Amino acid sequence: MLSKGQISHLKSLRQSKFRDESGEFMAEGTKLALEMLNGRIHITGIYALADWIGRHDDVLKGKEIPAHEISQQEIERISNLVTPQEVILTARIPESIPPQWERLHGPLLFLDHIQDPGNLGTIIRCADWFGFSDIVCSEGTAELYNPKVIQATMGSFLRVNVHYADLENFLAAKPDDREVLGSYSGGENVFAAGFGANPAILVGNESRGISESLAPFIDRRIGIPSFSSGAESLNASVAAAVLMAEFRRQQSG
Amino acid sequence: MLSKGQISHLKSLRQSKFRDESGEFMAEGTKLALEMLNGRIHITGIYALADWIGRHDDVLKGKEIPAHEISQQEIERISNLVTPQEVILTARIPESIPPQWERLHGPLLFLDHIQDPGNLGTIIRCADWFGFSDIVCSEGTAELYNPKVIQATMGSFLRVNVHYADLENFLAAKPDDREVLGSYSGGENVFAAGFGANPAILVGNESRGISESLAPFIDRRIGIPSFSSGAESLNASVAAAVLMAEFRRQQSG
Repeated sequence: MLSKGQISHLKSLRQSKFRDESGEFMAEGTKLALEMLNGRIHITGIYALADWIGRHDDVLKGKEIPAHEISQQEIERISNLVTPQEVILTARIPESIPPQWERLHGPLLFLDHIQDPGNLGTIIRCADWFGFSDIVCSEGTAELYNPKVIQATMGSFLRVNVHYADLENFLAAKPDDREVLGSYSGGENVFAAGFGANPAILVGNESRGISESLAPFIDRRIGIPSFSSGAESLNASVAAAVLMAEFRRQQSG
Repeated sequence: MLSKGQISHLKSLRQSKFRDESGEFMAEGTKLALEMLNGRIHITGIYALADWIGRHDDVLKGKEIPAHEISQQEIERISNLVTPQEVILTARIPESIPPQWERLHGPLLFLDHIQDPGNLGTIIRCADWFGFSDIVCSEGTAELYNPKVIQATMGSFLRVNVHYADLENFLAAKPDDREVLGSYSGGENVFAAGFGANPAILVGNESRGISESLAPFIDRRIGIPSFSSGAESLNASVAAAVLMAEFRRQQSG
């Protein structure tokens, strides 16, 4: 049984302010919990049904992590999900390291003010799938440790490095061998245009697209062709996914 | 100013049961409202800030639709959105017409138990973008007139026909010239495999994939290749989008 203080601490982790203060974030569900327990994340607490703790004795054994048996009702009070799961973890937010061009290898994804946490999480999941190991986000992009982002990544936040930076400054320092491809609805048909070998793909905000201030840093404008009489845009996470998929297709073709 | 009865009616439209009883659904925001007012949807009510009604006098003129001036607070009470918009419409749910093979032309998308309303809405938006004019959903798929679905379509529900059917029965009656391509994580690499001219692409449930009972109706299993060391799957709406995009790319290439 949890104290009122513990419950309110766990609930407070939905808010950026309290995550900053405590340096913790939370994640829910067996799949995420097991990936985190097997990874390099510093887990600070496990909150689970007695049955779950019993079933995962082998994973928990030897780990010095406080495991709290809690009731279904407590889970429901703490959970951020419509369908609460059997286990909730808290973990320490890793120190964020500003991105450095010389440490970024392979294809890159840049995100400019992606605001919906579900979109950001889905994009991280797709980046993982398509082997994009680094994402550089503008400072106005949703926060990685928002529980909605973490849940939507389905564990991919453990495999993709998500950096935050002032994109203007960062892109201004771009090395010559990187080409920045901006996603625009009127851009050159990406199925015909071709990516270079080492692209940096930039996707903009859900409604406003790419910030005007970033336009000077974009080498080429690309776009996903439309076959519609009326649709004005694609969802930002879908656009990012289609572009990453098309890069991989061209590379392997 | 709205009566308590009006407010509770509007709020009740979040629930399937009350949508069925009243035969109405709701939609929010200027973009959706204007598309609906210019379309063939039967609008039953407009609830908007006085300012919005003033600015859209030209659209409303000559239409015999009751326009209710409401306050910001009332909008916030009724709205389903985190950031409520200036206008909410109610409209009559069009009569659903069971799909018939002989009326379905062009590429088709089939959805088996897509449960997240946001996913369904995003898929409808993508189908519109990629010129898929018909989607056939299993009966266990989220409901089109759930406000979360309607909002996520960004108006595309007005251009894409979304049908519901018992997929087993429907696929059993498939004409010979249709090939059903099922999306499976281990399926043949879709970048290499090639779609036929007139495919029916089937995408399954977010966690369970395609129902076992539909396997006999699938002509080929296709998949989006992974470049990850750990990701197990793609989001269902992303998978649907990448498959539709790839079909269009192959067709135009």
